[in-house]
Amino acid sequence: MKEVETEQVTEADLDDPVFVEGLPGVGQVGKLAVEHVLEELDGELVYRVFTEHFPPQVTVDDDGRASLAAAEVYAVETEGRDLLVLTGDHQAQDAPGHYRVTEAFLDIAEDEGAEEVFALGGVPTGELVEEYGVLGAYTDDDLRDTLAEEGVEFTEDEPSGGIVGTSGLLLGLGERRGFRTACLMGETSGYLVDPKSAQAVLEILQEVLGFEVDFADLEDHADEMEDVMSRLQEMEGQQGNNAAPGADDDLRYIG
Amino acid sequence: MKEVETEQVTEADLDDPVFVEGLPGVGQVGKLAVEHVLEELDGELVYRVFTEHFPPQVTVDDDGRASLAAAEVYAVETEGRDLLVLTGDHQAQDAPGHYRVTEAFLDIAEDEGAEEVFALGGVPTGELVEEYGVLGAYTDDDLRDTLAEEGVEFTEDEPSGGIVGTSGLLLGLGERRGFRTACLMGETSGYLVDPKSAQAVLEILQEVLGFEVDFADLEDHADEMEDVMSRLQEMEGQQGNNAAPGADDDLRYIG
Amino acid sequence: MKEVETEQVTEADLDDPVFVEGLPGVGQVGKLAVEHVLEELDGELVYRVFTEHFPPQVTVDDDGRASLAAAEVYAVETEGRDLLVLTGDHQAQDAPGHYRVTEAFLDIAEDEGAEEVFALGGVPTGELVEEYGVLGAYTDDDLRDTLAEEGVEFTEDEPSGGIVGTSGLLLGLGERRGFRTACLMGETSGYLVDPKSAQAVLEILQEVLGFEVDFADLEDHADEMEDVMSRLQEMEGQQGNNAAPGADDDLRYIG
Amino acid sequence: MKEVETEQVTEADLDDPVFVEGLPGVGQVGKLAVEHVLEELDGELVYRVFTEHFPPQVTVDDDGRASLAAAEVYAVETEGRDLLVLTGDHQAQDAPGHYRVTEAFLDIAEDEGAEEVFALGGVPTGELVEEYGVLGAYTDDDLRDTLAEEGVEFTEDEPSGGIVGTSGLLLGLGERRGFRTACLMGETSGYLVDPKSAQAVLEILQEVLGFEVDFADLEDHADEMEDVMSRLQEMEGQQGNNAAPGADDDLRYIG
Repeated sequence: MKEVETEQVTEADLDDPVFVEGLPGVGQVGKLAVEHVLEELDGELVYRVFTEHFPPQVTVDDDGRASLAAAEVYAVETEGRDLLVLTGDHQAQDAPGHYRVTEAFLDIAEDEGAEEVFALGGVPTGELVEEYGVLGAYTDDDLRDTLAEEGVEFTEDEPSGGIVGTSGLLLGLGERRGFRTACLMGETSGYLVDPKSAQAVLEILQEVLGFEVDFADLEDHADEMEDVMSRLQEMEGQQGNNAAPGADDDLRYIG
Repeated sequence: MKEVETEQVTEADLDDPVFVEGLPGVGQVGKLAVEHVLEELDGELVYRVFTEHFPPQVTVDDDGRASLAAAEVYAVETEGRDLLVLTGDHQAQDAPGHYRVTEAFLDIAEDEGAEEVFALGGVPTGELVEEYGVLGAYTDDDLRDTLAEEGVEFTEDEPSGGIVGTSGLLLGLGERRGFRTACLMGETSGYLVDPKSAQAVLEILQEVLGFEVDFADLEDHADEMEDVMSRLQEMEGQQGNNAAPGADDDLRYIG
Repeated sequence: MKEVETEQVTEADLDDPVFVEGLPGVGQVGKLAVEHVLEELDGELVYRVFTEHFPPQVTVDDDGRASLAAAEVYAVETEGRDLLVLTGDHQAQDAPGHYRVTEAFLDIAEDEGAEEVFALGGVPTGELVEEYGVLGAYTDDDLRDTLAEEGVEFTEDEPSGGIVGTSGLLLGLGERRGFRTACLMGETSGYLVDPKSAQAVLEILQEVLGFEVDFADLEDHADEMEDVMSRLQEMEGQQGNNAAPGADDDLRYIG
Repeated sequence: MKEVETEQVTEADLDDPVFVEGLPGVGQVGKLAVEHVLEELDGELVYRVFTEHFPPQVTVDDDGRASLAAAEVYAVETEGRDLLVLTGDHQAQDAPGHYRVTEAFLDIAEDEGAEEVFALGGVPTGELVEEYGVLGAYTDDDLRDTLAEEGVEFTEDEPSGGIVGTSGLLLGLGERRGFRTACLMGETSGYLVDPKSAQAVLEILQEVLGFEVDFADLEDHADEMEDVMSRLQEMEGQQGNNAAPGADDDLRYIG
């Protein structure tokens, strides 16, 4: 296997597609968002990307079938803009790997004629979110204006520390290769998988790209998460006002 | 030395062999299983694989003789299928190393005409095991059916998180190179070296491949482990009902 | 992108420049010092250096604009020696990366005709500093003499453990390539961003290189830091004489 | 700079030399031993080895002069066998680096006509040592016999876990390249720099190679260490019989 190996599964037939990334990250916001799009709009697998910078492992499905760690790119036709959607279970394990894998993703975007790249993710607020705002970052002024019109906030010094991983590099390396790029980050506590934050991000994206998805499934998932949340808060209440140390940790990434 | 260096020690004379891996891992199940086969059926060393991705160290034997860290491949003739058995004391130290070393193992399998790969290992249950079940994962449907007939379980979402290390990559990379692959994982507590789990795995393997080994030595080893276990539980009992913190840790990988 | 990629932004027009480095480090002393010079003397961006050895991330500015992690080299004309100033937000993430990125910095120095390299940084004393001394290290005897005349101390075994990161390698690799090099390290507690230590370093540098900057802004920043410090000490006092464990940690790198 | 760069400082004029390694390790035994030889027998610096696998740092001497991290090889003429002595302050930072740097050391040994390699080090006993035994490991039977005659012990399963780092690889890689190799490991508590253990190792080495050094300086150093030790034990005694947690840690590598 090459260091990064892109396998084309089928020919995509997309018209001026937009590249949309949703890999694992804070609150799984980006991944939930793109997986919802793939389910609702019948995404078709077009590419698999394997790399020795992913963890040395296979995923095993319900039936016991093993598959080598990979990122996947799907073609999605919508009533608005066509989409090339990147998702998967892994990020690269080291800094050079991150750069090289992201270049491979951008190669795919280029080969398929995409000129815009949207990276989707979450931004941790550290507290329960009431109003699900969406923060933005960008490398293209026009995209910024379009997003700002839809209510995306471009606030001072947020996210502090910048954007790390594939989302960040799709903007940074993408700009250097001539893509117009932006990142949409849904506010989320950072403690739980957050379907509501994913919905907030998607609501912006569909306005901008002119497609529409039904949110019933995401809302069901959000209800389940609220149940989990209530039960955890109840358990915490029973332990008295001074929550046991580690109680917060127990909330992390249940979902 | 090259990044990965395969040294052929002797010519193997095998007929349509099956490649069987048992490197260190959970409960040392895979390693115990293949070492038992090598002892009982007189395995012959055919290849050594050295790599700078192994720990920078030599192993020292009882007499003080030092040997560079290596994985070893043995030829085993049985009354059923011939075997190419991979074992050793090390796994690669980083993700790219894991991929590259596994490719070298598959090169050997290919050179020797093997078309099937079995990875042996353990799956941790977190509690003492009464009935030693064997879980399976696969990339070839026929192998799955054969294994299921012998009682291997292909359960939903187990092992969660997939299969990591050489075992996982032999399946993932192996499938991509056209091998028929499967993984047999003996249930084990995860706290102790587990000869009984190794026996459970071997009992499946010998049914499938048509060979037979005597289990007396593994059973003796299992008895020893039970003695260790009893003494540890006794010690724990003397410390009162509330076992000292860390007592579980003390059980890990004695053997 | 190449492993290390140097992008020339504009042509510098410098006369026998001195290369001056101020990347992040102890007390941010080096970075504060060079950023102050760039602001006071209108530095012009000449090079950006990108590398997969930097963290895989983009920096996001106040407006949401994202920029790929990079080091930057500025040209500064002074009434004394011209300067090539290296700054940025990142150091390489691994040992080989440190060596390779530093070689790229020295390539720029060489291309622009610089023959001397000054690395600026801080040396942690572990206690509050009253008199801001400046320690030196060097690879060129003449530079050492010049610096000693300006009050730089070359003390026994300080800094113990040597100088790590880009500052250290600019000396070590720089000497091997024929540069005359020295390092100026301002004494600093190691707990706080330290504009006073940066000023102490700059006062030496401007004597040696014959330029002059106004220190009003650095002094304002130092006053702010003293306010922060006072409030922290007050808070600590209110917690009684036995400061809570971790109180020291709370002081680290506020600024 | 190349990944590993060997710089020849002068021409060595040795007759059938033996390569002797003493890099930092347990109790600094190997390093103390070879540094003592270099001082007593006037070693001459012949090679410096630089590599990006060493820490990215310069060492700073008493006068402030900075030197790039390097390993050094000295030529030593004795009344017995001539020596090529490897020492330094660093080991490689990652597994591939260890392999590649050790190959460079063996290249030097080969270029200078050495056919035997002795790696010197310490083996931790975890308790204060009364009788300073020396354990051995080897890849050459004749060397083993010679060492055993001098009292070196080749005990079962010691050191458990094998020999790691450059010492181990000099044996493992050295054997593969046709060198006759052995490792001498002085018993040491593992908590302190141990000149007595270094002396025990050297006493074996000089018997085997036919040279002689005065041990007065090592004995002085050992006396100093015993003073340190006594004072620490006294302090510990004053804290009552139950030594404070961490007291053992405080003993580590003072010297």
